[in-house]
Amino acid sequence: MRTEQDLLGEVLLPDDALYGAQTARAKDNFALGEQQVNLSLIYAIVTVKKAAAVTYRELDLMESQKCDAIISACDDVLAGRVNDAFITHPLQGGAGTSTNMNVNEVLGNLALQKLGKTAGEYSVIHPLDDINRGQSTNDVYPTALRIASIWAVRTLSDECAKLQEALQKKEQEYADVLKLGRTELMDAMPITLGQEFGAYAQAIARDRWRIYKAEERLRQVSLGGTAVGTGSLAERRYAYKVIEVLRDLTGIGLAKSEYPMDITQNNDVFVEVSGLLKALAVSLMKISTDLRLMNSGPKGGLAEIILPKLQMGSTIMPGKVNPVIPEMVTQVAIRVIANDTAISMAAANGNFELNAFMPLIAHSLLESLELLTASVKLFRTKCIELVVPNVKRCREHLERSMVLIASLAPAIGYDNAADIYRECGNDPEKIRELVLEKRLLSPKELDNLLDYKKSATYRNM
Amino acid sequence: MRTEQDLLGEVLLPDDALYGAQTARAKDNFALGEQQVNLSLIYAIVTVKKAAAVTYRELDLMESQKCDAIISACDDVLAGRVNDAFITHPLQGGAGTSTNMNVNEVLGNLALQKLGKTAGEYSVIHPLDDINRGQSTNDVYPTALRIASIWAVRTLSDECAKLQEALQKKEQEYADVLKLGRTELMDAMPITLGQEFGAYAQAIARDRWRIYKAEERLRQVSLGGTAVGTGSLAERRYAYKVIEVLRDLTGIGLAKSEYPMDITQNNDVFVEVSGLLKALAVSLMKISTDLRLMNSGPKGGLAEIILPKLQMGSTIMPGKVNPVIPEMVTQVAIRVIANDTAISMAAANGNFELNAFMPLIAHSLLESLELLTASVKLFRTKCIELVVPNVKRCREHLERSMVLIASLAPAIGYDNAADIYRECGNDPEKIRELVLEKRLLSPKELDNLLDYKKSATYRNM
Amino acid sequence: MRTEQDLLGEVLLPDDALYGAQTARAKDNFALGEQQVNLSLIYAIVTVKKAAAVTYRELDLMESQKCDAIISACDDVLAGRVNDAFITHPLQGGAGTSTNMNVNEVLGNLALQKLGKTAGEYSVIHPLDDINRGQSTNDVYPTALRIASIWAVRTLSDECAKLQEALQKKEQEYADVLKLGRTELMDAMPITLGQEFGAYAQAIARDRWRIYKAEERLRQVSLGGTAVGTGSLAERRYAYKVIEVLRDLTGIGLAKSEYPMDITQNNDVFVEVSGLLKALAVSLMKISTDLRLMNSGPKGGLAEIILPKLQMGSTIMPGKVNPVIPEMVTQVAIRVIANDTAISMAAANGNFELNAFMPLIAHSLLESLELLTASVKLFRTKCIELVVPNVKRCREHLERSMVLIASLAPAIGYDNAADIYRECGNDPEKIRELVLEKRLLSPKELDNLLDYKKSATYRNM
Amino acid sequence: MRTEQDLLGEVLLPDDALYGAQTARAKDNFALGEQQVNLSLIYAIVTVKKAAAVTYRELDLMESQKCDAIISACDDVLAGRVNDAFITHPLQGGAGTSTNMNVNEVLGNLALQKLGKTAGEYSVIHPLDDINRGQSTNDVYPTALRIASIWAVRTLSDECAKLQEALQKKEQEYADVLKLGRTELMDAMPITLGQEFGAYAQAIARDRWRIYKAEERLRQVSLGGTAVGTGSLAERRYAYKVIEVLRDLTGIGLAKSEYPMDITQNNDVFVEVSGLLKALAVSLMKISTDLRLMNSGPKGGLAEIILPKLQMGSTIMPGKVNPVIPEMVTQVAIRVIANDTAISMAAANGNFELNAFMPLIAHSLLESLELLTASVKLFRTKCIELVVPNVKRCREHLERSMVLIASLAPAIGYDNAADIYRECGNDPEKIRELVLEKRLLSPKELDNLLDYKKSATYRNM
Repeated sequence: MRTEQDLLGEVLLPDDALYGAQTARAKDNFALGEQQVNLSLIYAIVTVKKAAAVTYRELDLMESQKCDAIISACDDVLAGRVNDAFITHPLQGGAGTSTNMNVNEVLGNLALQKLGKTAGEYSVIHPLDDINRGQSTNDVYPTALRIASIWAVRTLSDECAKLQEALQKKEQEYADVLKLGRTELMDAMPITLGQEFGAYAQAIARDRWRIYKAEERLRQVSLGGTAVGTGSLAERRYAYKVIEVLRDLTGIGLAKSEYPMDITQNNDVFVEVSGLLKALAVSLMKISTDLRLMNSGPKGGLAEIILPKLQMGSTIMPGKVNPVIPEMVTQVAIRVIANDTAISMAAANGNFELNAFMPLIAHSLLESLELLTASVKLFRTKCIELVVPNVKRCREHLERSMVLIASLAPAIGYDNAADIYRECGNDPEKIRELVLEKRLLSPKELDNLLDYKKSATYRNM
Repeated sequence: MRTEQDLLGEVLLPDDALYGAQTARAKDNFALGEQQVNLSLIYAIVTVKKAAAVTYRELDLMESQKCDAIISACDDVLAGRVNDAFITHPLQGGAGTSTNMNVNEVLGNLALQKLGKTAGEYSVIHPLDDINRGQSTNDVYPTALRIASIWAVRTLSDECAKLQEALQKKEQEYADVLKLGRTELMDAMPITLGQEFGAYAQAIARDRWRIYKAEERLRQVSLGGTAVGTGSLAERRYAYKVIEVLRDLTGIGLAKSEYPMDITQNNDVFVEVSGLLKALAVSLMKISTDLRLMNSGPKGGLAEIILPKLQMGSTIMPGKVNPVIPEMVTQVAIRVIANDTAISMAAANGNFELNAFMPLIAHSLLESLELLTASVKLFRTKCIELVVPNVKRCREHLERSMVLIASLAPAIGYDNAADIYRECGNDPEKIRELVLEKRLLSPKELDNLLDYKKSATYRNM
Repeated sequence: MRTEQDLLGEVLLPDDALYGAQTARAKDNFALGEQQVNLSLIYAIVTVKKAAAVTYRELDLMESQKCDAIISACDDVLAGRVNDAFITHPLQGGAGTSTNMNVNEVLGNLALQKLGKTAGEYSVIHPLDDINRGQSTNDVYPTALRIASIWAVRTLSDECAKLQEALQKKEQEYADVLKLGRTELMDAMPITLGQEFGAYAQAIARDRWRIYKAEERLRQVSLGGTAVGTGSLAERRYAYKVIEVLRDLTGIGLAKSEYPMDITQNNDVFVEVSGLLKALAVSLMKISTDLRLMNSGPKGGLAEIILPKLQMGSTIMPGKVNPVIPEMVTQVAIRVIANDTAISMAAANGNFELNAFMPLIAHSLLESLELLTASVKLFRTKCIELVVPNVKRCREHLERSMVLIASLAPAIGYDNAADIYRECGNDPEKIRELVLEKRLLSPKELDNLLDYKKSATYRNM
Repeated sequence: MRTEQDLLGEVLLPDDALYGAQTARAKDNFALGEQQVNLSLIYAIVTVKKAAAVTYRELDLMESQKCDAIISACDDVLAGRVNDAFITHPLQGGAGTSTNMNVNEVLGNLALQKLGKTAGEYSVIHPLDDINRGQSTNDVYPTALRIASIWAVRTLSDECAKLQEALQKKEQEYADVLKLGRTELMDAMPITLGQEFGAYAQAIARDRWRIYKAEERLRQVSLGGTAVGTGSLAERRYAYKVIEVLRDLTGIGLAKSEYPMDITQNNDVFVEVSGLLKALAVSLMKISTDLRLMNSGPKGGLAEIILPKLQMGSTIMPGKVNPVIPEMVTQVAIRVIANDTAISMAAANGNFELNAFMPLIAHSLLESLELLTASVKLFRTKCIELVVPNVKRCREHLERSMVLIASLAPAIGYDNAADIYRECGNDPEKIRELVLEKRLLSPKELDNLLDYKKSATYRNM
């Protein structure tokens, strides 16, 4: 065991621990369970640290050997070699300081190793004076969260695009599968199964676009603003250069905010982005429920489509198969909606120059992004692409319904049509007969109106 | 009393009732209380009806006398002359059918009056065959909700712009009021009061932009799509022309959706817009809390600003005045966040070709828009514009704090600075003395570092 | 016009206004719209004022003529004679001070009238020194909210009891209507329609009990605690006596909190009660969705029950009738869930000795209570009691399903049963044949197992 | 690698995998990330399985050797020896079937090992015919969730009791620390620091009681009800006996529901319990914010208490220490509130005989319980017990405030007191002088009124 010292006293650490005293204190203070901070956030912070080291080297503000050691340490982390060294809980107090310190300490000790030193020799490389130089958790953390979010947003946007395409393929495939429309779950005007999938595709197309555009909202960063956004204690040259370097390292068009005090304290952007994710969640839940309903049965439900059989559905009923993917998607959607509540509450409760609850915002937002990305993909590959229509059943529902009565209304008036409806006693066969009997229309006019296909589009007059 | 008849039987109505049987049934079925459907939604629906009548007249699809009577009836409603005739409850079942019928019946009876007929002579002008011709609640209602939302969004965006300006004016006014920054409510690096208002202005600027852009999301309408979006039972010429007319009547760049089935069933757009309103709510709540904190006291709080005295604050403590406007704004913000939950749940629970819960979406969204518009205005005129800074108190907090210790850290190292901090025992006067005593810096270097203004910006090295 | 004066200056009032300067200021400050504070809250506050006046009279602490005038004024308000005099907005800042002042001023002026004086002669009867004597908004308002909540809770509990009975009546009526069970919307083991209504009844029975018990949580009041709960400025004798009087006036077993500081600042009780209302909302939404699904069709849905026809369902499709009551109930449920979010956020954001956001808590809680009470009643009278089962259809769904395969599993093993399932190709007729062919069971054993009724209960072995 | 076979085909499994085909399919189908089902739920399910095996042995319905092997397998899992074998994702579709199958397969294979067989020899011990005998996910899972919840509820209730005691200890300790009260963050009547902690204790006492009582709500279980609650396919003797055994194994007073159809489909009880957890969350957030405010400073804030220094608070400002525990507690509180939204939405969206979204309910509820338990403990041990009051500062705030003006109001009238207030110009020293000058009271009367202690309690008249 080795010891480290701070203003509050000594901390005992395992000899091989890459983290240091502040991380150990945080682990102890926030002992809420085994969950760890999202790795993509860790990687984004490390990328910021790397950008700083590169900047200091290029500006000749720090000796190059030290910079190289730090950069090499960053690369180790980014290669996933020391994931276990990041041990603080996602819901930590301190506005992310513990996560930042965890990174500072791990990078410091890794860099010390590069220089042949042992962990804890902070007089050579210091977690704060060197790794965190010119930085504060308050500019590093919000910047890193934006980077991690953009990484995730891009993947999610791509997955939405693929889902949209899969839906559109179904739209074309089922363009001629005429079926009963349903409004408020009651029989309504005819529609095609293709049009239904087309409508889903439209919603997902909007979601894709929204999520794609979300990157723009996230590109403004406050790095260089330090503790309260004023840039206090950061070298001016560093503060301007580091964004350029970070842009190169990430491939993201990051921009230095002209008003870093704003970015440091305001979190409305994460609320906005989470709101957009919620819109996607709502679309997914709506589509999932439709699929569950259309797949219901096989004998006592609608049975208009058949979802793929992915696993046995019951431990007691052999042969039962459940719509497990739409059910999973719905649960993810609800989780995302709940996360949005958490993000909104956390953002609304910020005070003055900083929001102390950014760790919750980060945890919830990245969770939503990851769950959505995975579930959008699973929804496509294990559900949408494998849907099989039950064309016969679709036709049956349509033909035994009374919906064509509506097609008569413009010609004979709503009240007459309603009378016919009543007299038919739910038997669509009688519509024709009754209209002719009442001489409301000629047989030819009737033929023209009592046509499912024609009833599924505009009338020409 | 007069009677009206439908498939379900007779309904007795007051003689002078402008509404008819369906409205009366709805009033009875949804007897949840006295609240009425939002009038702006009613007006938007009436505007759609007017556009239809104008269209039929122009296309010569309906006799012009009838059209003129209907148009004139619409103008009466839009002038606010019969507000009391709209009596259905906002949380009605039926996806808005009752609201649409209420409008159809009122317009029908008003138009009948124009023609010298009495209420209920539907053989002359029929609520459905004439007023609702070529329409369904399912295309009229979502279209009208978009129009009402755009009306409200425009006003709200304007109010946000004014709030932003007011904040920026304060930013300039207080550009030199140096004060203590606070992170996690603890003393932090110096900042100016101006920068704080500037940060608020940035958030509101983003909110304004978001809300301004929200109009684009709302412009695509499904009018002409009728029951399930396929256009079933609408004349093709009408369906294309009516959007043009509606564009003229509203002054909004509405566009006919290329896929009305989508608009009819998907409500993600309202979720998106509500999410943007929620971002504004979050910004407002954050700013309000800051103001409440800075105004706290006058003797036992921060007292860095003085909010205007608008009303006596206590029924028991004479002289007490409370920050009632920020408190009101916070409550509006919370209500908007709650409405967003309602809108998201309602939108997620749609089925197939329609969402049965649109009335709740409409009610919640329009309430959020109206509450925000009113409160943003009140926040500006009764709070922000009247804020008075307590410059002396701001300076005091800064000068008795230990924050300048941080300015030394880049020069003497974090650990040395931490030692000095500890030894000072919370007395900022001792910093200088101790640093010189330890010969860590020269007096000149110290002067340069121990400067509040310099500590509130980048260092040049 | 008359004028009133306070520390902030003069206020001009309509001559006949029963309210005074503070109300007028509040109306102006919180100009959010036309909505008014819930009348039941007003009446509860007035009841507290009446209790105070009765107490002062009985203790001889105020001259009886004045007390009598105040008491008589209270009775006028409680009789609903001056509802229009209460004009402050529900989302007011100031923790309810404006509502309390509105009551103080109206009662003061009414009492002055009783004494033959004119409005505003506060030297005779003063809104604060007399009507509000020994009180603060901070003890009056939370006490009144508890009273108003208990009034509403009692009615709601009664309505739940009636709903439970209606459901249990249906449970008995449909005890023999055997039907297909559904889990995850897929065909599952047989059940009776009666058992389904019985399960609904169980949930509502729990809801009823919870809501009934909620009264206990609400009975502890802080009246007498004044501004911060310490009782400061209230006479001791008054503080103890007034609760007794209030108990008599309300018929509620109110108890003086032993720790009024607690009641003044903590609002967890309203969060708890709102949470219980949310549980009811969840039960109602679940039942409503089941009914909407079972009623779906009539031709393209499950059609296992027929809900009453209450109004025409479509402006375009004659004869269409929608499940408008369950749709309304669902929207109320969602509103209640959203209100719960508002109440929780408001309660969580209280500071120190008081929660500034009580007006939002009051508004949301009373709205939830009223909406639930009305909708539970409408749900019963316009839906549950009028449900008609479609027995034939229920049987059909059951008989064409494959569910009896599950009954074989305990006898022949899950894997054998699964094989039979696969070989049957979805045709239940073949089950018997295949089992016999494979000699897995004797015909007699088979008869015993392939029985719907026996499959709907335990096996005896 | 070994293979397993089901209706859908072959599945390849690692040789040493304790789980089987259904688990592997689920892992693949719900590939949302690395998170696993909460172990306490797994243990509760295993306890149910053990109870079944014990029951079958006691009733002689299964050969005792097999039963013993299963029981021994259960004990292995409960000892935590095979935690890694439970690999399905918490947000799985299928209503928990995959979790149940994961347990069935692991127990089956472990039991096979006990008998000297190899994994997959299901003809000897079958995951369904033996481990799951007489059961369905639909009765096992809700029963297990109740057991796991009760385990957690008991610990949480104990932790709340300890927190309450710690707060009450502080109440006594600070009984004489007179300080300024604050309502709406503005100076208000005097109170003691002890009374503030006492008020916190009252709220936590209620929370403790609620959570303690929550166990009663959770004790009714549906085990024996199988798929839809009717008991279908379970032996009657087993169904009655197994509850007794389960009661013994768990030490919980579980009761067999008289209406298992209810428990199978309704989840209002979890909504209720989550609502109670939310009330605790709200109390915790309120207290945390108060502590953060009172601790604010040390120089530019209220500084009325000093929270313990647990870790360095800033990577840039040496010496800064933040209130990290209250910040953590607040984030946990928000997460619990968000989980409550998830639970409510999931419960409300159930259909017919089962709720497909129970996995989300289980995951969210158990997370809330665990986070609360840990954070209530940390709140006590790392914050409340270590609070140090700043008595001098408390007194200062009080003495420089104007609050004693209120004490005069009952004696000289509100309006006179308000005049004095205005004339004092915020200087409390002048109150005495002005009152005497105006001869409103005698010096002796004044002395009696202008007393902080007397102002913090009732007046005797």
